[in-house]
Amino acid sequence: MKVIVDAFGGDNAPLEILKGSVDAQNELGVDIVLCGKTQEIQKCAKENNIDISKMEIIDAPDVVEMNAPPTDIVKGGANSSMAIGLKALANGQGDAFVSAGSTGSLVMGATFFVKRIKGVRRAALATIMPSDTGAFILLDCGANTECTPEMLSSFALMGSTYMSKVLNVNNPRVGLANIGTEEIKGGELQQNAYQLIKSEGKVNFVGNIEARQVPLGDADVVVCDGFTGNILLKTYEGVAKLILTNIKNVFTKNIFTKLSALFVKGGIDSFKKKMDYTEFGGAPLMGISKPVIKAHGSSNAKAFKNAIRQAVNYSQQGVIATIAGNLPK
Amino acid sequence: MKVIVDAFGGDNAPLEILKGSVDAQNELGVDIVLCGKTQEIQKCAKENNIDISKMEIIDAPDVVEMNAPPTDIVKGGANSSMAIGLKALANGQGDAFVSAGSTGSLVMGATFFVKRIKGVRRAALATIMPSDTGAFILLDCGANTECTPEMLSSFALMGSTYMSKVLNVNNPRVGLANIGTEEIKGGELQQNAYQLIKSEGKVNFVGNIEARQVPLGDADVVVCDGFTGNILLKTYEGVAKLILTNIKNVFTKNIFTKLSALFVKGGIDSFKKKMDYTEFGGAPLMGISKPVIKAHGSSNAKAFKNAIRQAVNYSQQGVIATIAGNLPK
Repeated sequence: MKVIVDAFGGDNAPLEILKGSVDAQNELGVDIVLCGKTQEIQKCAKENNIDISKMEIIDAPDVVEMNAPPTDIVKGGANSSMAIGLKALANGQGDAFVSAGSTGSLVMGATFFVKRIKGVRRAALATIMPSDTGAFILLDCGANTECTPEMLSSFALMGSTYMSKVLNVNNPRVGLANIGTEEIKGGELQQNAYQLIKSEGKVNFVGNIEARQVPLGDADVVVCDGFTGNILLKTYEGVAKLILTNIKNVFTKNIFTKLSALFVKGGIDSFKKKMDYTEFGGAPLMGISKPVIKAHGSSNAKAFKNAIRQAVNYSQQGVIATIAGNLPK
Repeated sequence: MKVIVDAFGGDNAPLEILKGSVDAQNELGVDIVLCGKTQEIQKCAKENNIDISKMEIIDAPDVVEMNAPPTDIVKGGANSSMAIGLKALANGQGDAFVSAGSTGSLVMGATFFVKRIKGVRRAALATIMPSDTGAFILLDCGANTECTPEMLSSFALMGSTYMSKVLNVNNPRVGLANIGTEEIKGGELQQNAYQLIKSEGKVNFVGNIEARQVPLGDADVVVCDGFTGNILLKTYEGVAKLILTNIKNVFTKNIFTKLSALFVKGGIDSFKKKMDYTEFGGAPLMGISKPVIKAHGSSNAKAFKNAIRQAVNYSQQGVIATIAGNLPK
């Protein structure tokens, strides 16, 4: 298994990317192909005592800026580490591609260079998130601001395949994110998607799910357009940050609260680990014909290593082949 | 100040509604007009030793069911406690109306019986929510699944007026909920609303706000369509519930963790109070020509009392007159 890594994507590139890649190589036994400015990669590795001697490097002179218009990657950005990495994936120089760079550019580049699975209308960014009862997959999280019912139906199938193949969930419950549970709720998109997913009968559709029930674990797959998914995902992150920071402050107030912290530290830490989405690794770009994983832009070494693990699982569990086999012809 | 109360709205009617109304009468010095089945109100009050002797009762034979189609209220439901209460408000039999009943029916009934402020295209349900730095108002939270840029612009003005008049926020920062901060982000609605709100210059527009920043307090007013607002609001509630329940479980694990809880209880409780949205009272239905407040469907006496307080503040601070004066003619 060979994973191609965008060494110049994300806020902490290339240092944390290199560290995470070495950890993945050692822990997961994967081969790594680094993509980016060769000299800078070698310099960074040397200065930080990171042993990249067993890694291949594909030179890429440019870098995709985080705020570049997505279309740049197929124009002026075609020599960026992201574009060259995606082309290497398309050419079979590796089995999967991982980048912490711009989401928009990655969606555009993967669609253009690697292509979609035949029958998939749009790729979706799928995030695996913690819930009270385990984990759920949310898609789309921002690849497609506007969607059609057919797109949501294919997201349902893709998310269901992921949960069953990669996370071993038996007959995953698929919910449509909506503002009420009755089937007439929501706008035209939700109403039509509801009927389509139900009538196709390809997934275990549990109907509409209100956002309040999502973190509580009422569905294993939560389907929505990319705007809604992004709002849900980011609200989730923001509220978790707000509460966990405030709880932490309660414990650092005085000597008694600090002492109390000692006894509950184990419990709080294990809950925080449960809530830590970096544990789940990156977000697969589902619907692309080869495994492309988006790591969080602010990934540190650990998060990036987990994104590589995600790439390995996604690749080895045959998710893409299963999706391709289940799509309407 | 006289507040008309829908005695038969919400999951805990009429008992908790009566209790909350009596508390509001005693604590806030307001007059209460109860609307609903006279005999049942009197029976419930008697059985539970609630003194409603100083309250007026307007008899209403019917009740709006929670899942009734919203249009019912202007047809078969015109003799419901909600419809008769709204008509009493329109006729000047009270200064404000509070109901914990169905949101859809309340929006429809208020628009039909009480009418919108001249120049407001649609009423918006506005929820006051806790953030890390205080409170913010989110609108629309579900009255309008689909919106136009002009509607979002009027929501911006209404929310800003609320924060400045009722919560005394100086020059409230208005943000447009979006999936990125750049002005080209989002769909057509967000892009056009951004330009419209900016060009009108009626509010202190701080541009797009990502959902992650909303709970952290980056804006005092968060504007969006009702679908997005409902997703944001409900995700907020769900994540808060998930985390606070899990933290509570950590403390009840054993004798040491229970002991620890004693020292941090004060801090945790005061944080929980800060996060408790029932403290902020109900959600004003902004854009209606008289004060109409939606209390949470699951309101207990305390939450309902706070909704009445909300009605008093909303009414006395002249929010509606200020909005009317600032609307484009």
